Parts: sequence; structure tokens; C-alpha cells
Amino acid sequence: MNIGLDMMGGDFAPLEAVKGLKKFLSVNSHAVTIFCIGDETLVQPLLAEYEVLSPNIHLVHAPEVIGYNEHPTKALKEKQQSSIAIGFQLLATGKIDAFISAGNTGAMLVGAMFTIKAIEGLIRPCVSGIVPKTNGETGMILDVGLNADCKPEQLNQFAILGSLYAQYILNIPNPKIGLLNVGEEEGKGNLLAQATFPILKENPSINFIGNIEGRDLFGTKADVIVCDGFTGNIVLKMAETVYDLAETRNFHNDEYFNRFHYENYGGSPVLGVAKPVILGHGISSAKAFTNMIQLATQMVETDVCAKMAESFKAS
Amino acid sequence: MNIGLDMMGGDFAPLEAVKGLKKFLSVNSHAVTIFCIGDETLVQPLLAEYEVLSPNIHLVHAPEVIGYNEHPTKALKEKQQSSIAIGFQLLATGKIDAFISAGNTGAMLVGAMFTIKAIEGLIRPCVSGIVPKTNGETGMILDVGLNADCKPEQLNQFAILGSLYAQYILNIPNPKIGLLNVGEEEGKGNLLAQATFPILKENPSINFIGNIEGRDLFGTKADVIVCDGFTGNIVLKMAETVYDLAETRNFHNDEYFNRFHYENYGGSPVLGVAKPVILGHGISSAKAFTNMIQLATQMVETDVCAKMAESFKAS
Repeated sequence: MNIGLDMMGGDFAPLEAVKGLKKFLSVNSHAVTIFCIGDETLVQPLLAEYEVLSPNIHLVHAPEVIGYNEHPTKALKEKQQSSIAIGFQLLATGKIDAFISAGNTGAMLVGAMFTIKAIEGLIRPCVSGIVPKTNGETGMILDVGLNADCKPEQLNQFAILGSLYAQYILNIPNPKIGLLNVGEEEGKGNLLAQATFPILKENPSINFIGNIEGRDLFGTKADVIVCDGFTGNIVLKMAETVYDLAETRNFHNDEYFNRFHYENYGGSPVLGVAKPVILGHGISSAKAFTNMIQLATQMVETDVCAKMAESFKAS
Repeated sequence: MNIGLDMMGGDFAPLEAVKGLKKFLSVNSHAVTIFCIGDETLVQPLLAEYEVLSPNIHLVHAPEVIGYNEHPTKALKEKQQSSIAIGFQLLATGKIDAFISAGNTGAMLVGAMFTIKAIEGLIRPCVSGIVPKTNGETGMILDVGLNADCKPEQLNQFAILGSLYAQYILNIPNPKIGLLNVGEEEGKGNLLAQATFPILKENPSINFIGNIEGRDLFGTKADVIVCDGFTGNIVLKMAETVYDLAETRNFHNDEYFNRFHYENYGGSPVLGVAKPVILGHGISSAKAFTNMIQLATQMVETDVCAKMAESFKAS
């Protein structure tokens, strides 16, 4: 398989991307070819310095970079030679099977939705985040940012996408789906949650277990938690600070709190597009890059995006 | 001043209420009379056993109890001799100056809104929660549950209520008001947040500092965080689990994580009603009761409810 990696995305690019790639190659035994997309005058010397020399590495020159503060649609249109634009061209033409970038999130989302396109029948793609469970398992929450205002049917679609992702990527058979809400009983919540509950309850393709409250987020009630992207984004960013709180209080290297650190899960996949697209944190470290490449290979191997598309065709 | 305390509310009532009251009397030097409202056959022997014998204690017999699962409006109407119904009668007639209960939250809210009434000009009251800051200070978030769906003007009103509460109760001069959102820039967010931002920006009676993300919740950017009651409820319940997470990982007695434990701030005040009404957790311990009584005296002393009413009259 061929994975595209934007070498220019992230605050510490391209150095951390190079180091993360080196680590990935050292531990990965699969037949993976990495397309390193970036400014070759910057990337080539680093690949040489860090001895990332493998026949499975292809450097694709991208002389332009989309900055963090650029307008996504405009930048993507005008900077055709940027690493993000080239990445999506390679993905759309099938030269790579997955694309990873820690660059401008907006540009990544525009690229994912307009170059790769949403799967048929889906209202809009979403982005998911990881929830470390107290029992050692890993859950997920979606949407975490792409859809600030949602219709009930969108939350139902997130449930389907999340259920498949949990099965194929998190290896959870028959994942339990919970609706993020302010109370346990049906009928609780804002208008969106109230209208979503009966739709989830009647969806035969998911294992809906009811409402999940803020206090149950890290517990074992649900594997997949669905909510609008506004609530999900706030919850995910808050969860990420749990690691920082523990660090501040000198609770270093706790196995559980460490799992809240973004770099341990790498990046967030865009779900509901035809091919794997992974968004990295702006502060992505080498470890985050390694984990994002790992996740991309897993998404390609399991063909989870096609499974999602099939599921919407069938319904 | 006269404080009404529902002795029958909470999973461990009336025992924990009695113990909490004893502790309050042992540390409090103010002239406070406590009206203990509850079943005298249960309360009287406990007051005797724990030697809570003070001329400032008045036992008010309430033979009925509203259970946790009863319908709030129906129960309050039918059980006129319940501790909650009697508490609100005493509050409405001026016999007590504040009312505290760890009982049925719905019944407490119905009582607060229909017996005591919302202050004039306010769309609807709200409930606030405490946010422990990493720098040792204490912030607040509102609404945390009463208004699952909000209009922009409601969030503006929460900002005014929160600003006054922060000044008078949390002793924060010129409190910084933040809008809970998914990004820092104006224009970010769901439709509600987008429409609320310019209203907060133009409100001369508050010190609006802009958007606050999930990651900034425990930081020092804002003292008062406003949001709809759906988001706020999830955020508050999630914050409360931070204490449990630390306990689970054997980080006992950490000064900061302990501040996330509900009993250390006692209860949540209903804001926007004419008199102090404080809601306790169902699991309220003696310490929680002590802190709720303490908070009630502070709300009566500072006359914060009247300050809130004046502020809406003026505008």
C-alpha cells in the first residue's frame, strides 16, 4: 500500500515528520510505501541526516506550503503546488491510498470533502476522537468538530460510521453506541438529542444502549459516543487537558493519564469520505506522526472506508 | 439571617444533613438561624444524638418526602407537606432567606421558578457550576442544566448573572467572561455561539474576553464561562469525573484534584430567582451540607440576588 505523508504540516515540520517516519519504518514489517510530500530542499537533507533511506520512501516535491492562518478554500485553490493540494491529487488519482497531514485543518477538510468526496448517502463527513476508558479499553466520540449544528439524521449517520470504525479499527465487536446527553432517560436533552434518541433506537444496524452523561464518558457504558460537532469538540479538547492537569500536578508517566496525550493516538480520522484522511495536531511530535502512519495502514488494510460506503448503499 | 435546610434530601438524609449542620455550627460565628425542615420523628432523635442543640436551630415538621423519581410539578402540587414544598412556602413568605436541598432537583427548580419566581426581565433562571482553575483560583460555568436549548439573549443574561455572582460570591473584581466555543476567533461555532458573540461584545456591563475552548476551561483566560445548559451540563459532569479519575489512579489528596470533588463546593445555586436557592448532589455528604449552608449565608449577606434583580431593572 501507498501512504501519503505531508512533511510540511505541524509546528515542527518537517523534522518531526522525518523522525516519526524513521520510527515507523523501524517497527513496521508490512509492505508500505510512503510518499513524502514536501519541499525537497528542506526534506531531502533531513531524510539523509536521519538516515531514512529505504526503497519504500518516495519524495514528492511540493514547493508551496499552506499556512495555518490561510483561508482553506482559497489557499487550496491558489496553491496547487502545496503539500496538501498535491496530497489530495495523489489520493484522488489512486497513487496513494491514504493521506496524513498535521497542516491547516480547514484545508484538509475542504480537500477531503471536495477532492475525495463524501460517501454516497451521507449528509456530511465528520471527525472522530479517541476516549481512553478507565478499564484500559479505548472508545471514541464523534463528531468532534466538522458539524457544529446537526440534524438528528446526521447523528444517526455518525453512529453508523462510528460503529464500523470501532469494529474494524478499535477491534470492538458489536460496539455499544451511546447518545451524549444530560440525563439517562429517553426524552431528556435539547431538541436535537430528544429527536435523535428514537432514530437511534430504531436503527437495526447499530447496538444503541441509550443516553450517556458527561460523567460516563470515561466509563464502560458506551464504546462510541455520538453528538453534534460543537459539543464533541469541547468535550475532546477538555479530555486532552486531563493529561496536562496530571502533568501539572506531577503525576508523570501514569499509564492511564498518558493515554489522554494526543500523541499516543496520533491524529483524528475524517470519517465518511471514500479514502482514509487523517488530521494531525499542529503540535504533532515524532511519536504522533508514527502513530498516524500506523493508523493509516490499519485503515487501508481493513478497507474501513469502503465498508462505510457499502453500509450507506445498503440502507 | 434565617436559612432553610431540607433534612430529607440526599441519599444519606437526614444523617449527613445533621452532621453537616453540626460542623457548620462549630465553625460559624455569624448570627444564623437554621430552619431544619423534615420529618421530626427522624430528625429530632439525630439532632439529639449528635448534640446539635442550639437556640438557633428550629425544627419544622414536614411529614412528606418527594422522592427522586417523582414528577416534579405533580409531586410539589400534591405533597404540600413535603420538606421541599414547605421550604418554598417559608422562602416565599420571608420566614427564611435562603433554601437548600439535596432532594429532587426538578422539584427544586419548579419551586424556585414558580414559588419564588424569576427576576423581572430575565427569560429564565439558570444553574451554575464551579470550575477549579490550575492557578488556585475558582471560576464558574453557566448554565449547567436548566436550559438545554438557548437563544443568544439568554447566554447574554447568563453572562450578567455570572459576572455578579463572580464578583460578590467568588470575590473576583471585574470578572472575565468567556463564551464556550470551538475556536478562538469571532465567527466560530454553532449558530447559537455565532449569534451570541456580538451581543456579548456589545454588552457594556460585562468584561467579555471572547471565545473559550474546551482546552482553556481550567486555565486563567476566563472567570465566568457561558454556554447553553446542554453543553454546560456535560462539561460540568465531565469535570466532576476528573476527581474520580485521579482517585482511580491512586493520586489521593492532591490539592488540585480534590477541588473537583463536588463536596468541596457543596451545591449549585439557582441564579436569576429573587432569593438564594441551592441544589445539592443526591450523594451529598456532611461536608457538602456544611459548604451549602456556608454558601447560603454568603449569598444572603452579599444580597447577590437583589443585585442581579437591580441589574436587570437598569438595563
